[in-house]
Amino acid sequence: MKAELISIGDELLIGQTINTNASWLGQLFSANGISVHRVIAISDDKAEIKRTVVEAMDHCELVIITGGLGPTKDDITKHTLCELFETTLEIHVPTLQKIEDFFSKRNRPMLESNIRQAELPVGCTILTNDYGTAAGMWFEQKNSIIISLPGVPYEMKGIIMEQVMPRLRERFALKSIYHQTILTQGLGESFLAERIADWENRVRNRGFGLAYLPSPGMVKLRITSPNGVEDKPEIDAFFKEIQGELPHYVYGVEAQTLSEVVGAICQEKRVSIGTVESLTGGAIAQDIVSRPGASAYFKGSIVAYDPALKMSLVDVNPHAIASNGLVSEEIARQMAEHGRKKLDVDYCVSTTGVAGPDGGSEEIPVGTVWVAIAGPSRTFVQHFRFGDDRERNIKMTVLTTLNLLRCEILEIHHEKK
Amino acid sequence: MKAELISIGDELLIGQTINTNASWLGQLFSANGISVHRVIAISDDKAEIKRTVVEAMDHCELVIITGGLGPTKDDITKHTLCELFETTLEIHVPTLQKIEDFFSKRNRPMLESNIRQAELPVGCTILTNDYGTAAGMWFEQKNSIIISLPGVPYEMKGIIMEQVMPRLRERFALKSIYHQTILTQGLGESFLAERIADWENRVRNRGFGLAYLPSPGMVKLRITSPNGVEDKPEIDAFFKEIQGELPHYVYGVEAQTLSEVVGAICQEKRVSIGTVESLTGGAIAQDIVSRPGASAYFKGSIVAYDPALKMSLVDVNPHAIASNGLVSEEIARQMAEHGRKKLDVDYCVSTTGVAGPDGGSEEIPVGTVWVAIAGPSRTFVQHFRFGDDRERNIKMTVLTTLNLLRCEILEIHHEKK
Repeated sequence: MKAELISIGDELLIGQTINTNASWLGQLFSANGISVHRVIAISDDKAEIKRTVVEAMDHCELVIITGGLGPTKDDITKHTLCELFETTLEIHVPTLQKIEDFFSKRNRPMLESNIRQAELPVGCTILTNDYGTAAGMWFEQKNSIIISLPGVPYEMKGIIMEQVMPRLRERFALKSIYHQTILTQGLGESFLAERIADWENRVRNRGFGLAYLPSPGMVKLRITSPNGVEDKPEIDAFFKEIQGELPHYVYGVEAQTLSEVVGAICQEKRVSIGTVESLTGGAIAQDIVSRPGASAYFKGSIVAYDPALKMSLVDVNPHAIASNGLVSEEIARQMAEHGRKKLDVDYCVSTTGVAGPDGGSEEIPVGTVWVAIAGPSRTFVQHFRFGDDRERNIKMTVLTTLNLLRCEILEIHHEKK
Repeated sequence: MKAELISIGDELLIGQTINTNASWLGQLFSANGISVHRVIAISDDKAEIKRTVVEAMDHCELVIITGGLGPTKDDITKHTLCELFETTLEIHVPTLQKIEDFFSKRNRPMLESNIRQAELPVGCTILTNDYGTAAGMWFEQKNSIIISLPGVPYEMKGIIMEQVMPRLRERFALKSIYHQTILTQGLGESFLAERIADWENRVRNRGFGLAYLPSPGMVKLRITSPNGVEDKPEIDAFFKEIQGELPHYVYGVEAQTLSEVVGAICQEKRVSIGTVESLTGGAIAQDIVSRPGASAYFKGSIVAYDPALKMSLVDVNPHAIASNGLVSEEIARQMAEHGRKKLDVDYCVSTTGVAGPDGGSEEIPVGTVWVAIAGPSRTFVQHFRFGDDRERNIKMTVLTTLNLLRCEILEIHHEKK
């Protein structure tokens, strides 16, 4: 089954909104064997919407349209589809009821514009929206199914999961192109490729696809099998090999984040963690807390951004600052070790460095970072030299620190660079 | 000038990567009067790449292709363009020199695959890449300019800014469709629309476009003029009106973030800030620190996620916890007021609540949040009831807290809900 995703909205073309709906749908569909052929973003323009939908119907059995269903005047998708499929709008009573309930539950008045959202095309299947006021629409035309959904991500996702996927599964035998991904941190793309060159050849000779997906601080490796899930054991074996060879770099699989992996390890090993952060400013803590259930192992954090707070909150020795400087092995060590006691945790990480763009010197340029991890048996400190970009430096430090923490808890001796 | 953006990579279709390149390019181009007609993502497939590029050349004078130029075997863009434009690859000596420098500067060995990156099509203009090893390519075919760039965002951005935009400006008189955006926090889309209905009619009657761009916790309002920057004063006046009417909700313009706005206000008013966070787990601090120069006003933060740390690090009174519960007005107040002293700041915000998915009760359901702001003249505490989704609840709390902090520092009396 081939699908095309059409996202409607000027905000996508002028770059005010990032198209996260398309990536979410792409993930879901590819896991269900629906191959996404193209992703297109176009403007709220009647002629353009019609042309793109018609073209998509020529190529694909499934056309998903997101966006342009809001209560405001710039949203024209519903009217355009009515014209294209030669139908008219009519108040859909169950939807009106739903909208009324939606507002009365939230104790808020219902507006005229919300009532108009219950006007829906005659002859399509209405897809109930339990998360907002714009219902979805399912049209069948020629040999294609055309589905129009609101662009607000969590409303779109709700309708897809509860209304669209069950209907697709009922009608079609969905099968899978099979993907599996492992995640690495700490080695650049070319270096990783060089280290696994033989392995890569064997993967490709077996008829699998291999893709490198780099992003700041990490590289994902994806193996694709055209035969579906039956190849899982073989792909598992390939990945196990890599993991055995590069345990300090391979940290997880699929959509796992480093904070999820670290969280799971903490729960398994029954250890607690905390952070004392300077240049990362709470970014490590917030990444850890983004995982549901973090309170089982994450106790807290001290963001000592101001030098005075390093002394008053974390008892960093002022003489040590005077003789080593704030960005140094010794200060990173003290922050982690004292933080471990203050936060009463098994492992405490610390970061100190120069994120940029200002604050660098010849001796300690922008991008200099010290990371320390104080654990029950030792304190490990490592020096890094990242680049010139503040955002990247913070991100790289967060990922690097979480990966070092993972290795320390698992007692994987880390390669010194 | 019309442009089409083509992003190449299976990872975009299966949703493993979000297409942030397209939104960045969309912003840049629309600001320069290059109208982005469509954004298309396709797979690393020779036939599909050729078909899409040829189709784009039919519609647009400018075709930007990103992705598929990496050193690894799944990257086929360069070879495909050679076939399409009937040319061949040849070692480009200055690029080879650049790649050699790139590696020697970083003190890393150069790999065979990196040398192959210096093989570039004969007859195109080579666009130097100062940030990585894949050069960009500028082709001219029929009436179109076709530019192929690496997909790694910061390499792509560097080449666009330093190599592509200057060449486009030299050749074309770029002019502007004019956009202006204001940013609101704290009112839902329909409620905002209702409050500004008369104003909206006047904006539209003047011939301007108006778009509502909602995301969790905020709504952007964008006015578009077809006549270019000459309409700026009139659009400014429209926005000034809204800002005067809704000062608690309108916090900024264009791509400003709330943390940038708060940062600028802190610098102007010469006040310092800090945070004591529970459910947000450092997310407010990390948002503040993401702005360059945050050290001028942000001192630090205590993430007291564990109840024991609320007592040991922030001196929250255990009796107050016993009689009010951890998620309560009183605890939020104590966290902010004690944090203000501990962190030695003018304003300290605090958050306590139930982010979910677990931890809710009938009395204090998931989504319950208390925010407090302790300042020099008063402590302001407000209660919120967000939804069921952890990520959204944390995000809404961060935005809400920063907006309340903005209002407190500016002494804008906030509307009680």
